[in-house]
Amino acid sequence: MSLLEAKKALGKKAASLVGNGMIVGLGSGSTAECFIASLIDRVQNEGLSIQTVSSSRRSAELAEKGGLTVADINDIPRIDLTVDGADEIDPLKRMIKGGGGAHLREKILASASTELVIIVDESKWVPSVGRGKLPVEVLFYGSPATRMKIEQLGYKGHWRLTSDGSIFITDNGNLIFDVEFDAPPHLPEQVNEDLIHIPGVLETGFFFNLAGRVFTGYADGRVELSKGK
Amino acid sequence: MSLLEAKKALGKKAASLVGNGMIVGLGSGSTAECFIASLIDRVQNEGLSIQTVSSSRRSAELAEKGGLTVADINDIPRIDLTVDGADEIDPLKRMIKGGGGAHLREKILASASTELVIIVDESKWVPSVGRGKLPVEVLFYGSPATRMKIEQLGYKGHWRLTSDGSIFITDNGNLIFDVEFDAPPHLPEQVNEDLIHIPGVLETGFFFNLAGRVFTGYADGRVELSKGK
Repeated sequence: MSLLEAKKALGKKAASLVGNGMIVGLGSGSTAECFIASLIDRVQNEGLSIQTVSSSRRSAELAEKGGLTVADINDIPRIDLTVDGADEIDPLKRMIKGGGGAHLREKILASASTELVIIVDESKWVPSVGRGKLPVEVLFYGSPATRMKIEQLGYKGHWRLTSDGSIFITDNGNLIFDVEFDAPPHLPEQVNEDLIHIPGVLETGFFFNLAGRVFTGYADGRVELSKGK
Repeated sequence: MSLLEAKKALGKKAASLVGNGMIVGLGSGSTAECFIASLIDRVQNEGLSIQTVSSSRRSAELAEKGGLTVADINDIPRIDLTVDGADEIDPLKRMIKGGGGAHLREKILASASTELVIIVDESKWVPSVGRGKLPVEVLFYGSPATRMKIEQLGYKGHWRLTSDGSIFITDNGNLIFDVEFDAPPHLPEQVNEDLIHIPGVLETGFFFNLAGRVFTGYADGRVELSKGK
């Protein structure tokens, strides 16, 4: 078994939570994409009837290619269940997301959903969030000045680039500044406060108090419902 | 004398603060436009040599039409002085801005400037901010859900429309939700906290701890340096 198998098992488990008639939010990233694949499978093979809304263009394209109905989030009355991955999660169910640069829309989707179900392979669990980078969405206008403000608070990082070395632009037309920590911050909530009060910072990748059920996938193929602290 | 005369006197006063070689931030709105007009006058008649950066397309167009050099904010090393108006200001120098929908860029400009000079006619002074509407910039994606979150916190309001009745779109491509208070809030800072923690809310029109010198213009043509409390 492999990490991919763990993600596939997670996708299948999450898809099993979806009921007929639901409006389902689609997260972004490789684990969320395994969920989308399993959801397509259920719709095609079981005749499950659902609507979806997507947190990224990429997930929307995958879903539509598989025959799912992808509605405009601005046209739907509610979201019953959103399924998404996470880059990091800790025992307080604090998360960091945005490795794919979709965290602003993912957070809106999560916040608008009756429940956000998180699916993560075991490698995503950390003692406290901040092991890796923290993606921060920044308005292009004034971005050098905004970066300076971030750095004046003691945070280091860099503008995200695409694989071909050009500047990464989010679906919303903004930049991503990836903050790098020397060590996980003692108070992630305070880091979030510091950052969101800087004009030009539109959203951080911290997700607090948003996760509902969290399922963890292991390399041996098991999927477990994980309890927070 | 009239309100327009007060604004013209304010514009002239603020333009007199600009020194040779400065990089000057241009605010937005009718009072800031009087400053831009006086600045053009000084450049044309006194040979003042400056660079400017603008908080809105409209102010940039006015400045360029008058022969001012308008640099890209992302290309300049610093901003010496920004001059802007306000929709409301109180004795704690708390302000509400964004009547023109430019408050996100105005706030970035203000925050990046060595000093933000505020010019207001006497009608803009209030005992405590929140007499009128509070403009809130909201991402289009998920905007109905974001509005619902705002309203669930007890704030009422409406999407801003243009004069022809179509939806108002900011220079950043977002919407403006104008929050309306029944009475000025007791703790504007708490209102700001409530709002900026909603995913999809990108910036409010509250400006705290940003104003430097504040000049007030009166209908009789006087301009006074106003002390905060």
